Amino acid sequence: MSRFGDATAVERIAEGRYEADLDAGFSFAEAVNGGYLMAVLARAAVDASPHEHPVATAATFLRVAKPGRAEVLVETRKSGRTAATARVGLVQNGVPLVEALITTGTLDAGSEPEWVGEPPVPALPPLDHCTSFGGGDDRTRGFADQVDMRFDPATMGWLDGRPGGRPEMRAWFRLADPHEPDAYVLALAVDALPPIVLNMGARGWAPTVEMTWHMRAVPAPGPLAVHGSGRLVDGGWFDEEVEVWDSAGRLVAQSRQLARVGRRS
Amino acid sequence: MSRFGDATAVERIAEGRYEADLDAGFSFAEAVNGGYLMAVLARAAVDASPHEHPVATAATFLRVAKPGRAEVLVETRKSGRTAATARVGLVQNGVPLVEALITTGTLDAGSEPEWVGEPPVPALPPLDHCTSFGGGDDRTRGFADQVDMRFDPATMGWLDGRPGGRPEMRAWFRLADPHEPDAYVLALAVDALPPIVLNMGARGWAPTVEMTWHMRAVPAPGPLAVHGSGRLVDGGWFDEEVEVWDSAGRLVAQSRQLARVGRRS
Repeated sequence: MSRFGDATAVERIAEGRYEADLDAGFSFAEAVNGGYLMAVLARAAVDASPHEHPVATAATFLRVAKPGRAEVLVETRKSGRTAATARVGLVQNGVPLVEALITTGTLDAGSEPEWVGEPPVPALPPLDHCTSFGGGDDRTRGFADQVDMRFDPATMGWLDGRPGGRPEMRAWFRLADPHEPDAYVLALAVDALPPIVLNMGARGWAPTVEMTWHMRAVPAPGPLAVHGSGRLVDGGWFDEEVEVWDSAGRLVAQSRQLARVGRRS
Repeated sequence: MSRFGDATAVERIAEGRYEADLDAGFSFAEAVNGGYLMAVLARAAVDASPHEHPVATAATFLRVAKPGRAEVLVETRKSGRTAATARVGLVQNGVPLVEALITTGTLDAGSEPEWVGEPPVPALPPLDHCTSFGGGDDRTRGFADQVDMRFDPATMGWLDGRPGGRPEMRAWFRLADPHEPDAYVLALAVDALPPIVLNMGARGWAPTVEMTWHMRAVPAPGPLAVHGSGRLVDGGWFDEEVEVWDSAGRLVAQSRQLARVGRRS
């Protein structure tokens, strides 16, 4: 198994109760990464379901999760032929950290879209025109070591103190592991970009309050194109939408999060 | 109080337990409208919170709700200075119908956006160039009598058997009541459009599986512009994104739902 596979594994200890060991490798200084936590929750939800894929995950982040032992509680609320829904909670030392609603379904890897919208504009430049993080910020190396992300230079001016002025960020994404994209990698990909408000002059951590993502197709092997953008920054709140397209040119995941703007520069 | 105000009222019968009386006026033939149910849940969540507005609502629709008595159960999971989060459930005759996570916060009605994206393209035509429903479909009159919606004719070809071929729908929205927009009207507005896949040749009801909406600003009085569009129709699943802009030209709500395509024509 890959490190990502190990790190997101859950062990069923009773009906609806799972144990996880949150891997420090998927942490920033302040917190375990939210996308990684959603992958852990999704693995428990799928284990408890007759279906294969987490088609809809709505997660609310209450408190920071620390690396180490955690419990995942799954309460099935409906299990149907097309979909099953559960309340899923992440608890550490008896304290709820993440509350989620996860709907599982089974997507057909061979299905052809009936209709798909235009790919995002602007497009992501070819991989060899993109830049790796290189920020030298030691606090983020844990997570940065687990993923291989190549950023569109047009969205990375904030790194050099020249934020682009639009809340957007784009990157090629793959795991550092030899682990091809699956449902759980998509959970990581939708929350992997640095906060898009860094391009508005914000600094530091921008805590996610609520994030919903939908798995739309089974991803093909290869790098994922991750497109992040926002619509409104107001009163300290901002939204970030992410679309993930796979190497076969398919829209495989969509997300929106509502988050708080970090400290201003 | 207006009919909408009465219809969404909840009565607190114990800590975290509320009674509601679901109004048949907000039903289609098959079911009570999902946006109306989200408004009822939000009223209970705000009542149980120190905050004023439902800033993030993620709702999963498990089973059809019928007009009549229902219970709303609110379990607070965190109550903080900026936001509070609760699990909120709608139950009828002991059966869970809707599971939701609602985060409340307090938006400042006077705040000025720090950054806002371009208004949706294409724009909604002026109100007097739009058409009312006029479908003559008696099954939908309950809901249609409560709202005053004027549709962009370019998105209504499906009514005459000429679906436009793109999953989109646009309309001006207000209540038939003299009730100006507030948080609860926004909950109704984000789920008020006919399913956008009607413009792809689908017919009939398109059940929402999961819907998340974010309240981004306190709406000004006057009609709301409701822009609905989708990105992917695949394997019987489709997404529908809605943006709601108020009469002052502000983005006041954003939503995405994952739903099932209805029967084909």
